[in-house]
Amino acid sequence: MKNTFGNAVTLTLFGESHGPAIGAVLDGLAPGIEVDEEYIRSQLSLRRPSDALSTPRQEADPFEIKGGVFCGKTTGTPICIVIPNGDVKSADYGEIAVKCRPGHADYTGAQKYAGFNDPRGGGHFSGRITAALVAAGAILLSALKQKGITVATHISSIGEVCDRPFGDMAADAEALNGKTFAVLDGAAEEKMKAAILSAKAEGDSIGGTLETVVLGMPAGVGEPWFDTVEGMLAHALFSIPAVKGVEFGAGFSLSRMRGSEANDPFEVKDGAITTTTNNCGGILGGITNGMPLLFKTAIKPTPTISREQSTVDMKTLENTTLSAAGRHDPCIVHRARVVADSVTALVLCDLLTQKYGTDGFLK
Amino acid sequence: MKNTFGNAVTLTLFGESHGPAIGAVLDGLAPGIEVDEEYIRSQLSLRRPSDALSTPRQEADPFEIKGGVFCGKTTGTPICIVIPNGDVKSADYGEIAVKCRPGHADYTGAQKYAGFNDPRGGGHFSGRITAALVAAGAILLSALKQKGITVATHISSIGEVCDRPFGDMAADAEALNGKTFAVLDGAAEEKMKAAILSAKAEGDSIGGTLETVVLGMPAGVGEPWFDTVEGMLAHALFSIPAVKGVEFGAGFSLSRMRGSEANDPFEVKDGAITTTTNNCGGILGGITNGMPLLFKTAIKPTPTISREQSTVDMKTLENTTLSAAGRHDPCIVHRARVVADSVTALVLCDLLTQKYGTDGFLK
Amino acid sequence: MKNTFGNAVTLTLFGESHGPAIGAVLDGLAPGIEVDEEYIRSQLSLRRPSDALSTPRQEADPFEIKGGVFCGKTTGTPICIVIPNGDVKSADYGEIAVKCRPGHADYTGAQKYAGFNDPRGGGHFSGRITAALVAAGAILLSALKQKGITVATHISSIGEVCDRPFGDMAADAEALNGKTFAVLDGAAEEKMKAAILSAKAEGDSIGGTLETVVLGMPAGVGEPWFDTVEGMLAHALFSIPAVKGVEFGAGFSLSRMRGSEANDPFEVKDGAITTTTNNCGGILGGITNGMPLLFKTAIKPTPTISREQSTVDMKTLENTTLSAAGRHDPCIVHRARVVADSVTALVLCDLLTQKYGTDGFLK
Amino acid sequence: MKNTFGNAVTLTLFGESHGPAIGAVLDGLAPGIEVDEEYIRSQLSLRRPSDALSTPRQEADPFEIKGGVFCGKTTGTPICIVIPNGDVKSADYGEIAVKCRPGHADYTGAQKYAGFNDPRGGGHFSGRITAALVAAGAILLSALKQKGITVATHISSIGEVCDRPFGDMAADAEALNGKTFAVLDGAAEEKMKAAILSAKAEGDSIGGTLETVVLGMPAGVGEPWFDTVEGMLAHALFSIPAVKGVEFGAGFSLSRMRGSEANDPFEVKDGAITTTTNNCGGILGGITNGMPLLFKTAIKPTPTISREQSTVDMKTLENTTLSAAGRHDPCIVHRARVVADSVTALVLCDLLTQKYGTDGFLK
Repeated sequence: MKNTFGNAVTLTLFGESHGPAIGAVLDGLAPGIEVDEEYIRSQLSLRRPSDALSTPRQEADPFEIKGGVFCGKTTGTPICIVIPNGDVKSADYGEIAVKCRPGHADYTGAQKYAGFNDPRGGGHFSGRITAALVAAGAILLSALKQKGITVATHISSIGEVCDRPFGDMAADAEALNGKTFAVLDGAAEEKMKAAILSAKAEGDSIGGTLETVVLGMPAGVGEPWFDTVEGMLAHALFSIPAVKGVEFGAGFSLSRMRGSEANDPFEVKDGAITTTTNNCGGILGGITNGMPLLFKTAIKPTPTISREQSTVDMKTLENTTLSAAGRHDPCIVHRARVVADSVTALVLCDLLTQKYGTDGFLK
Repeated sequence: MKNTFGNAVTLTLFGESHGPAIGAVLDGLAPGIEVDEEYIRSQLSLRRPSDALSTPRQEADPFEIKGGVFCGKTTGTPICIVIPNGDVKSADYGEIAVKCRPGHADYTGAQKYAGFNDPRGGGHFSGRITAALVAAGAILLSALKQKGITVATHISSIGEVCDRPFGDMAADAEALNGKTFAVLDGAAEEKMKAAILSAKAEGDSIGGTLETVVLGMPAGVGEPWFDTVEGMLAHALFSIPAVKGVEFGAGFSLSRMRGSEANDPFEVKDGAITTTTNNCGGILGGITNGMPLLFKTAIKPTPTISREQSTVDMKTLENTTLSAAGRHDPCIVHRARVVADSVTALVLCDLLTQKYGTDGFLK
Repeated sequence: MKNTFGNAVTLTLFGESHGPAIGAVLDGLAPGIEVDEEYIRSQLSLRRPSDALSTPRQEADPFEIKGGVFCGKTTGTPICIVIPNGDVKSADYGEIAVKCRPGHADYTGAQKYAGFNDPRGGGHFSGRITAALVAAGAILLSALKQKGITVATHISSIGEVCDRPFGDMAADAEALNGKTFAVLDGAAEEKMKAAILSAKAEGDSIGGTLETVVLGMPAGVGEPWFDTVEGMLAHALFSIPAVKGVEFGAGFSLSRMRGSEANDPFEVKDGAITTTTNNCGGILGGITNGMPLLFKTAIKPTPTISREQSTVDMKTLENTTLSAAGRHDPCIVHRARVVADSVTALVLCDLLTQKYGTDGFLK
Repeated sequence: MKNTFGNAVTLTLFGESHGPAIGAVLDGLAPGIEVDEEYIRSQLSLRRPSDALSTPRQEADPFEIKGGVFCGKTTGTPICIVIPNGDVKSADYGEIAVKCRPGHADYTGAQKYAGFNDPRGGGHFSGRITAALVAAGAILLSALKQKGITVATHISSIGEVCDRPFGDMAADAEALNGKTFAVLDGAAEEKMKAAILSAKAEGDSIGGTLETVVLGMPAGVGEPWFDTVEGMLAHALFSIPAVKGVEFGAGFSLSRMRGSEANDPFEVKDGAITTTTNNCGGILGGITNGMPLLFKTAIKPTPTISREQSTVDMKTLENTTLSAAGRHDPCIVHRARVVADSVTALVLCDLLTQKYGTDGFLK
């Protein structure tokens, strides 16, 4: 399946950072889902670098829907979204073609593609490809909304600075989806931005974590083996460049707990079965239990930094150094948040379509 | 794909804990791979409960290979392994059919399968299904060995007790693959066992983490989007019951680092490109870089405990309590270790076959 | 996907003719489908050689369901069916391991599997594998029945002898599904049997065609590109050993028609849209139109014959001759009929599950 | 998988006839394959209506490659080809949105997509989508050429007029690939063209058959069950709009043969194993035997004709009549030929990549 994800609903990504365009094909989604171009644009703006915290590259992302949408709704046929590349300065990257950037895919890409890949601007490995993912994600999020399902992500940490945990989830989710820098605690936001600017000032970069919540998922979705909700979400989340860890519910801290502490007791509430805690992140046996889905994603610091680093020249096989001159972000955590929402929507639409069918999204 | 994993090499699991048998079908593996029944048996024995640390259920696991093997070698056709169920005491689980165990899949299974699933002993959700995965994994590990690739996992922690990190990886890997309780540091081993027995004595259970290393993987394997090495491994690892977190290389701690610290500098060593550190866990841009793969898996405490827990009666929708009477493990981390090796082998054989073809495993 | 077929509902086949067993794993089927072992047995008996028209090999086919069924109904988890091999005389086939039978897979199997395949009795290529397909097919046919969908196949020709075409389809389908030698016209049946016995008497074999009808399929099922109903059915039907042609509706004869003759006029009948003819076989644009599905399958004469044939010795690379001594069928058309029904049921359950979801089969 | 075909190499089609564009995404193909835009153009010109035999719609097909190609070679990442739609006259098709054309997908499309599909010009069902398939096919054919494999198709019949069968296959293949109207026998060509013009003059349309040959395929490619070479090719060929039958080698006529006549005797020739006849079309047990692949595809007459036909109004559910006024082809057999070559190349590249790996195409 390679650059395609999903069984019933599939997403394929294509394009290179400095090629003619990037884009996505979304197939298997039900007909009749609203496609709101304004909403797609606003989602894209969340991913786009827009201020001092990000690269100065101006990505207008003027997406074009090439098929699969008619009269403002999905037709049920494959949706192709193309985002032409503009504002490209290939010259900045000339050096990278031979000197591989530490932490980046320059070396592995050359190995995988036997030197035939387009190395300019990271080529097909560039984070820019996620713009196409976000555009498709906006349609998937609209499909979930139609089913009463909400996805929201906050920046749970930047470096050592932590946001507060989720409280009133519905209110928090709504607040987050209106923010550009998605933090729940205003004081944390200021400290996070300061940490990013401090890293930038030192020619360095900084990492962080995202925490995502999904509200409204019905119980009984997912598979016991392999296509577990955790497995599918993790598979998709690790596609976001720089993600190096994923945990559900209490995650790694569960490894330090006793069962009597970790288990979420069941309780009947308003005639429905719920749990009183949510250490499992809404997933038991790989299957949703009707509680909110909760998971965290660890994002490493952006690999491209202007500080001098040791590396090698792939042509001469000699040790050398590199100071990245191109435009680059001191932090991508805040930009990755809408990408996390998008891949989450992809996984959930896929699993829901398997259970309820393509027709299950028709009103 | 549901209960099947993989693209070029696929594994399908079937069976219920208290049904006639469990098993696996492995397809797409090259012909000519050695199938050593003694090795399969020894791998199964690593997963099997064997002492005071585990459930008293005696699982002899007398596997039967139903096809795909001829003259001690894979034929290239699907390999089916069946492990008949014996020593089954269904009576113990009668209560569970209506009272759902906290932390277990009783409730989600009933929701997913509309009440038609076999609830005895956890049915298709039972950890017992992993015996089939381990049997198939032994063949996959042999295929990797034929390519000079070694997989090894140690128990990096039980509760708060930690093993030492990997040192000389080749030596550590060899040592681990000869041990039943796979710990590198003998002192840690004693403390871990004591922690497990202490939880058991209190009618409770305990979690932990596993750390896996893969030696000998060539550079250039994996895909940039979706079928990244991290995404594929995580997808498979989250299938191991009780896994709630996966991280690669320095993982979550990368989120607290600066780029200048996190990036692994490249270096030419003996004419080959390597990195001087391995924070990325041997994977850049979703693709192997030729360094050892390194990843950690978080395992929650076994949900079934004898302590009384609050739960609900799924039939009457009333709150109630439950004290599990059946046989159960106070800890499954040490048993899960060979399962982690097995799913790792599955993912790697799949990715290698995509790059080199089915014929790529022929000598 | 190799030896697996399907997207939402998948079937995997395993086993070798003279190995320990053959079998199938069926995954993705809804929970709650009736599994009637008596019906499975009766379907298997239709495939089994039972009289002078077939090989004397006695295949009792005592199938064992290893998982996925509980209290006589599907659980929704993978169903594994194992059919142990008995009455195996491998000695008969010793010669074939080096002399490749014309028309058979001895040579191509050795090429594909680099000589590691099990050549005894055709190994994994043996028509015997279809017994597992038929056992799984019985469950799939039950699932369709639950949705009001009937599949029936008649022997439309043996050599030059033709059956009458379908008339009253519902009545014809019911009559066919009660017959061992599924012919609509009694006079044709006698001539067909005579043709088979005549070929047998001459140490030869004979081919024929099957025609299948599906009643009760709703309109709107299938995909416009690639996963068309025709494409999916043909893909599966060509898996039946010896099938070399598939055509839908008027099929190849459409290539000799004008559009005004070929097009099926639409008509409103009892408030529903129907067509007055059915040259398209119930499929337009790859999608069902609510009319009966109709298609024909061409089956070549059994390749294994006792007459002397020219062939080569694969070891010495010398020309030689071969007179098959093992047990073999002079004709498999009448036996293949229940296999055609089974793969048809697989394709339709897969396509219906995509549209209506796994839950769409729940009452 | 829906609008995607293939396992190791996949092709996804998107777009609607009168939407902004149509296109294709090709993934999994090896890096380093030559992408000759001039060759793509020449292949597209073979599909494009160009004379009195076809619709007057001028389709310039100015394709744009959006990614996956660098310095004139494939990079190994997904290739996206977009063909913008020009020269669109939607007004002609207004009537069709409610009156469904007999033989066309207007009715089934409306059923499948619950009325949300774009009905203009056949929407996603339009034969125009095959332009994208042909553009991708040109790259796939180049990949095969690099491996020494040639694909060629001739019009074996139009209505009752037949071309001569293949003679010297290499010479015939070369001759065909240089022709616009691909017929081996010049006299047959004139008669075929006359038959098409005669159907056109009567406001009618006409069908035909294509026969494809593949030279240079190695033995041992394909799978015994489901992903047989026949099954994969048929699956893809039935995606070509209007295809209603596919047969391999002697095909349906094998059903009228004896085994002694149908079986292709093996023979050692120049030290290699070959067969003296090719009734099996180069495929035994679903696997290539090293002989030329040979198969025929039946194409029904174009459904859209200007003659008056009975149909229904989908809105009012009343019987009515329809005389198609839009531009349409009296015959598409000659145009479909390059589409047959393209899907054949897709299937073969997919199967070869499974056996030899992505790296198997590297020189």
